[in-house]
Amino acid sequence: MSPPAVAIRGGACPFCEGHEAIAGREILAWHAPEPRVDGHSWRVRVVPNRLPALRVESHYGEPTDSLFHSLGGLGAHEVIIESPDHYASWSTMKASDLWTTLWAWRERMRDLRRDIRLKSFLVVKNVGAAAGATLDHPHSQLVALPFVPQHLEEEMASARAAHLNTGVCAYCTVIEREIGASTRLVSSDAQTIAFAPFAARVPFETWVMSRTHGAAFDEQTDEALGAIAERLSDTMRRLDLALGTPPHTVLLHTAPVGEADRASYHWHLEIIPRLVAESGLAWDGGIHINPVAPEDAARYLRDSRL
Amino acid sequence: MSPPAVAIRGGACPFCEGHEAIAGREILAWHAPEPRVDGHSWRVRVVPNRLPALRVESHYGEPTDSLFHSLGGLGAHEVIIESPDHYASWSTMKASDLWTTLWAWRERMRDLRRDIRLKSFLVVKNVGAAAGATLDHPHSQLVALPFVPQHLEEEMASARAAHLNTGVCAYCTVIEREIGASTRLVSSDAQTIAFAPFAARVPFETWVMSRTHGAAFDEQTDEALGAIAERLSDTMRRLDLALGTPPHTVLLHTAPVGEADRASYHWHLEIIPRLVAESGLAWDGGIHINPVAPEDAARYLRDSRL
Repeated sequence: MSPPAVAIRGGACPFCEGHEAIAGREILAWHAPEPRVDGHSWRVRVVPNRLPALRVESHYGEPTDSLFHSLGGLGAHEVIIESPDHYASWSTMKASDLWTTLWAWRERMRDLRRDIRLKSFLVVKNVGAAAGATLDHPHSQLVALPFVPQHLEEEMASARAAHLNTGVCAYCTVIEREIGASTRLVSSDAQTIAFAPFAARVPFETWVMSRTHGAAFDEQTDEALGAIAERLSDTMRRLDLALGTPPHTVLLHTAPVGEADRASYHWHLEIIPRLVAESGLAWDGGIHINPVAPEDAARYLRDSRL
Repeated sequence: MSPPAVAIRGGACPFCEGHEAIAGREILAWHAPEPRVDGHSWRVRVVPNRLPALRVESHYGEPTDSLFHSLGGLGAHEVIIESPDHYASWSTMKASDLWTTLWAWRERMRDLRRDIRLKSFLVVKNVGAAAGATLDHPHSQLVALPFVPQHLEEEMASARAAHLNTGVCAYCTVIEREIGASTRLVSSDAQTIAFAPFAARVPFETWVMSRTHGAAFDEQTDEALGAIAERLSDTMRRLDLALGTPPHTVLLHTAPVGEADRASYHWHLEIIPRLVAESGLAWDGGIHINPVAPEDAARYLRDSRL
């Protein structure tokens, strides 16, 4: 067995300002104009994952065994270092700084989608050891895959079926109903919404969406990302206040690269607090037993004054 | 919000011998003949879950909202108390005592399958807080569902497609190949096998199977369960020795009730060590990054002498 990866915390953090050489080759960065008021030289940096699950240099290939399918690790696995500050978080950062992270996600997707072998993107942010994070420094991961993963295939198929049936985007209808009923609403403005989804899988699961229909995250404008950054910042503040900075996962769901059907799918962000370990029922069977009704969670978050 | 369920540990454990009245109505038990050599009056007891996710008294109904589907919590949610001894575990119990647990699973399924509204069974055993367990006392949970869950539908569909293609059970072929190659084999005898599955999702994932084809667990004979109990006992001893009694989940996969296709599916047990928290990639997308090759894990378990 290879030795396990060593978790690096605190002073030796490779993502901290001044350790840029350790973090690895800079793929993209937002450099501050000189002189910066807060003294930092960058706001966000994107580097390759040090232990990448996938590499663009790999060859995907074809399975050679009919029973045991094995394919090359083609793809990209990048880390977005979201702040020079080790102790920053989405709830303490300014929304304009959080915007820079969303900007980096989008810019990397726009670059990577030019590689025609890559078919879909996953962005995941794990915060806290209970969410599988090995580093405390605020960061997210971008994975580009040479296939469309099953969960996204299924989500797209459901959306397509609903659209075929009703003629409208099911997500747009959900947004309209959640704003109308208000019982699962956390907050909203003219452009964005945060709400506890019907059939939330875990306590305080919260979705953040743009109210304007759009299938792909990488087609969002600077302005649209600004509104999302504001909503995310507000939502994470409420969650941190209500639950005491819970470990959590943030997942970006966005349409596959070059998806022709632009009408049925609606990109969104899912915030999954990781308050308790998942039972085997959820691990395997996707059966979630959630003791907190989304209506109760939403009311609690609405009342979490900032 | 309702108050969270209180985890009860140690002296106040409701599953310990002498606390039968607290544990709840006895649905099934293996009572020892008098006088018992080890002094216990029972070996296994089945009781209703105190906070059941599903009840046979519920009405399933039909969804009334086209967007937000809500159905009654029809089903059964039972707890199998696997030993009167709070500190027992599958690796310290005698295999004959572990057999009694498998017997209880089977007997409860045989009883519940007479309720024609119930379509499938899940059995899950969570050990340790990191696996979502709230009680330390050795126990497992049986869930009977009024539908076939998606993971089982998909597993059955794959098995059906492979069978159609080759004329043989894909699981039987896997067993044959794993025994032939030996690289992922943990242990085996004439009736059973334990091995690290190809594309294991987490380090040290281990499957235990009967080498005799069979779709449903509840059709297994006493003797077949005896052989499985021996294999499970040996496997858990190896895992506990190799990994230091790791938190883990055990999942039983068995064909839906009354499944007509008996040829393509093969019931099995999956042991999932819960050594690290799952990243958001696994949580949502079913994408598992496993740093330990199953061949390495199997070699390590083979060499874990008992």
